[in-house]
Amino acid sequence: MKIFLNKTVATFILLLAINFVHSQEVLSRISVSGNSFVKEDGKIVVFRGLNTSDPDKLERQQLWNKSYFEEMKHWGANLVRFPVHPTAWKKRGKESYLKLLDDGIQWAGELGMYVVIDWHSIGNLRTEMYQHDMYDTDKKQTFDFWRTIGKKYGKNTTVAFYELFNEPTTYNNELGTITWEQWKELNKEMIGILRANGGEGIPLVAGFNWAYDLTPVKDSPLDVEGIAYVSHPYPQKREKPWEEKWTKDWGFVKDKYPVILTEIGFCGPEDPGAHSPVVSDESYGDTITNYSDEKGISYVVWVFDKEWAPRLYIDEKYTPSRHGKYFKKKLQSYKY
Amino acid sequence: MKIFLNKTVATFILLLAINFVHSQEVLSRISVSGNSFVKEDGKIVVFRGLNTSDPDKLERQQLWNKSYFEEMKHWGANLVRFPVHPTAWKKRGKESYLKLLDDGIQWAGELGMYVVIDWHSIGNLRTEMYQHDMYDTDKKQTFDFWRTIGKKYGKNTTVAFYELFNEPTTYNNELGTITWEQWKELNKEMIGILRANGGEGIPLVAGFNWAYDLTPVKDSPLDVEGIAYVSHPYPQKREKPWEEKWTKDWGFVKDKYPVILTEIGFCGPEDPGAHSPVVSDESYGDTITNYSDEKGISYVVWVFDKEWAPRLYIDEKYTPSRHGKYFKKKLQSYKY
Amino acid sequence: MKIFLNKTVATFILLLAINFVHSQEVLSRISVSGNSFVKEDGKIVVFRGLNTSDPDKLERQQLWNKSYFEEMKHWGANLVRFPVHPTAWKKRGKESYLKLLDDGIQWAGELGMYVVIDWHSIGNLRTEMYQHDMYDTDKKQTFDFWRTIGKKYGKNTTVAFYELFNEPTTYNNELGTITWEQWKELNKEMIGILRANGGEGIPLVAGFNWAYDLTPVKDSPLDVEGIAYVSHPYPQKREKPWEEKWTKDWGFVKDKYPVILTEIGFCGPEDPGAHSPVVSDESYGDTITNYSDEKGISYVVWVFDKEWAPRLYIDEKYTPSRHGKYFKKKLQSYKY
Ligand SMILES: [Mg+2]
Ligand SMILES: [Mg+2]
Ligand SMILES: [Mg+2]
Ligand SMILES: [Mg+2]
Ligand SMILES: [Mg+2]
Repeated sequence: MKIFLNKTVATFILLLAINFVHSQEVLSRISVSGNSFVKEDGKIVVFRGLNTSDPDKLERQQLWNKSYFEEMKHWGANLVRFPVHPTAWKKRGKESYLKLLDDGIQWAGELGMYVVIDWHSIGNLRTEMYQHDMYDTDKKQTFDFWRTIGKKYGKNTTVAFYELFNEPTTYNNELGTITWEQWKELNKEMIGILRANGGEGIPLVAGFNWAYDLTPVKDSPLDVEGIAYVSHPYPQKREKPWEEKWTKDWGFVKDKYPVILTEIGFCGPEDPGAHSPVVSDESYGDTITNYSDEKGISYVVWVFDKEWAPRLYIDEKYTPSRHGKYFKKKLQSYKY
Repeated sequence: MKIFLNKTVATFILLLAINFVHSQEVLSRISVSGNSFVKEDGKIVVFRGLNTSDPDKLERQQLWNKSYFEEMKHWGANLVRFPVHPTAWKKRGKESYLKLLDDGIQWAGELGMYVVIDWHSIGNLRTEMYQHDMYDTDKKQTFDFWRTIGKKYGKNTTVAFYELFNEPTTYNNELGTITWEQWKELNKEMIGILRANGGEGIPLVAGFNWAYDLTPVKDSPLDVEGIAYVSHPYPQKREKPWEEKWTKDWGFVKDKYPVILTEIGFCGPEDPGAHSPVVSDESYGDTITNYSDEKGISYVVWVFDKEWAPRLYIDEKYTPSRHGKYFKKKLQSYKY
Repeated sequence: MKIFLNKTVATFILLLAINFVHSQEVLSRISVSGNSFVKEDGKIVVFRGLNTSDPDKLERQQLWNKSYFEEMKHWGANLVRFPVHPTAWKKRGKESYLKLLDDGIQWAGELGMYVVIDWHSIGNLRTEMYQHDMYDTDKKQTFDFWRTIGKKYGKNTTVAFYELFNEPTTYNNELGTITWEQWKELNKEMIGILRANGGEGIPLVAGFNWAYDLTPVKDSPLDVEGIAYVSHPYPQKREKPWEEKWTKDWGFVKDKYPVILTEIGFCGPEDPGAHSPVVSDESYGDTITNYSDEKGISYVVWVFDKEWAPRLYIDEKYTPSRHGKYFKKKLQSYKY
């Protein structure tokens, strides 16, 4: 039987199809309940995700497209983190950069993956000194970034997390001083701005020592509801055996609050870009994933790129690196 | 009879005439006495004035000239307020903008009208976040503006008022936080800078909620002499009946300190640019002017322009709008 | 006898020679002991030096060369001070300016003279307001400057001193307010940054009133070891007789801490550029040098330039001015 559709009917079916796809895209809003992330139905979610490189870099390399996201989905990610470098944000311009985020959030959502938007600076926001010029920002730009993100994506359920400041560090005081109380106050200001502008996602708060150290949370957590804490426990931050030290340094926080490791990963010493504190081997992979899984801690592997280190793949066919082989297998092993 | 003047006599007469005009220009210095503005002879003055639009805009439209000031005088204004947008100040350049102010102050003074210089930003000076990019400034630029104004016009008696910051607001915390104590400290810094640089005019201090709310003044006024407080009680800031609410929100301040409403006005709902909180009718005009007159509160109507809203006139002949008809009649009715 | 050297031997000798010259350059590290500056062997040093003008200016005039340093050495200086204007630092660019400093430090060291690197701003670093646009800077740039200097010259023993901020002043509050406690905190931040970045030289801390006034040090010194205090006691800061007043204003500090007068000097009233507070005569020279010598206070004369005032020489042959004649003779008279 041959079917002829007139234009109106065809349009109707097309709209239905679009609507169907669209309804697939609307992910359940993630929120904080006790020390966990939960969906709207109250079910606990643990995230195992992948870091993209800077969307601006990927776009310039013509890699910021849906197939990149499909590959991350194929590797088993249920979360992707976008590291937005302040200097890229400024150079590309707010409007143009937001288009990249629009696309990435759309693709992630269509594939059922959540998104972390990460203000990817490294240094001391109080003195406005940074590890490198590419991380340069100031309080005014940082506040404005979160105001913009809150307004634009605050109601978008795909954007589950706002990582307020990637890696706070004084670089052993080379970047001046900042106390934990001062850092808390800056985070509270950012959280207040996000929420006043409609941000319904979860703010992520990092500690000092390049987002490794959460020890001050024991006596002085933020007096703000609905947030989670971040650590970046790269292998060389501590000597083996790691577990007890990790518990003292950041793992204990999970007793009371949700914790997400937004950067983990390793390089073999022979790998390109190998540098302290990331040099290790698969034993690190086993230890950090077992530790996290046991405690229900979420994690995001750094980095789904073939040039930045520790790289997860080595060529345009997404052939896994040693590091990539480990985590591709691991992420694919989870039954959610 | 035909008169022949030789050149010397003509010059002499010309100089006399100039001197006469000039002596007319020197207005009595306005100062604060108790809860009032007074002239040098101690006589209380109540101001009823008009807001110009930004002198930069008027100059670009070739409207920044003496006839514009003559028209405001004709409407009954004894005070004019110049809203200097920080971005216009920056774009035009300090030297060039000061020439506009020179002219405006000169024309106003020649016509016996006093001047408010108003740093026309809207937002949170502490976090340096603003309602719109056109209001963008920072503490450094703001302090430098008042240093410049103090130095340049501090002894000029026509410049009666320095309105330190037009409309402080956190925009319901979208622009971050600022406490009343922090706001007081910023105002004291600006007042200190003005006075150290020779500013003998009266600093005007506004409260939060777009310069509407002065309730914190009850318990925590600035510990500085010789200042006045500002409110912008547009009609929709409160529901009718207004009087009691106004008294609680800002009117009570007049019991102790001088108060000036540097922006009042209304649009009919049909008028171009009608927007919350300015939509109302002549009943607002009656209420706010009666309220002010009873208490001896000064006011300045927004805005003597044919494009900005609520506009007071509608064409190049200064034909009054509905709003303009109301206030032209009202201002012309005062017997000083 | 004719000697033939083969290439290897020639290179060896060359290296020896370079090494010899180099070993001459390595000056003993200066540190603080009690209220004195000492060399590594514990021997007290008192400095009598000369201010260069801004290296950027000298280079543009093709005067930034070794003969300029040889002349200062010939005049008897054992210390030279480089006033780095923030705006010159910015305009020339960090990398290019550092090359000037590299050369100057090298030449000074070869001649056995120590160096003060002086961040030559005048004003209020807290409000970021300055006496003149050429002194414009902000906290971020200032912190970054000292981070850069600490990293680059921290181990270089020729660079004995870091003068954190040339002349702090509120200009009688025209530049806003700053308390002594706020000023101490800014200095401590800068000292911390310098030291964390490897700066082993001695930080120099100035007081208010254009670096004249150290009275707050009596009750509230910085709680930091290994620093010295600065005064700029130009002749007209106080009326004659000076000694008692100087002791009360800054001289008393030498009872506990090292003191260095990084700017002294005078103009006759007839000299070019004569301005308050520098107008005086040789009696000032006698008084300030006797006062300093008696107490073991170091000093640096302003300024080894033929255009800036008070100038020390008047032409390209380094012919001394009246001021120069006085101090050339004085500096040459010391037996170290
Ligand atoms: Mg990292
Ligand atoms: Mg508000
Ligand atoms: Mg307004
Ligand atoms: Mg001072
Ligand atoms: Mg000086």
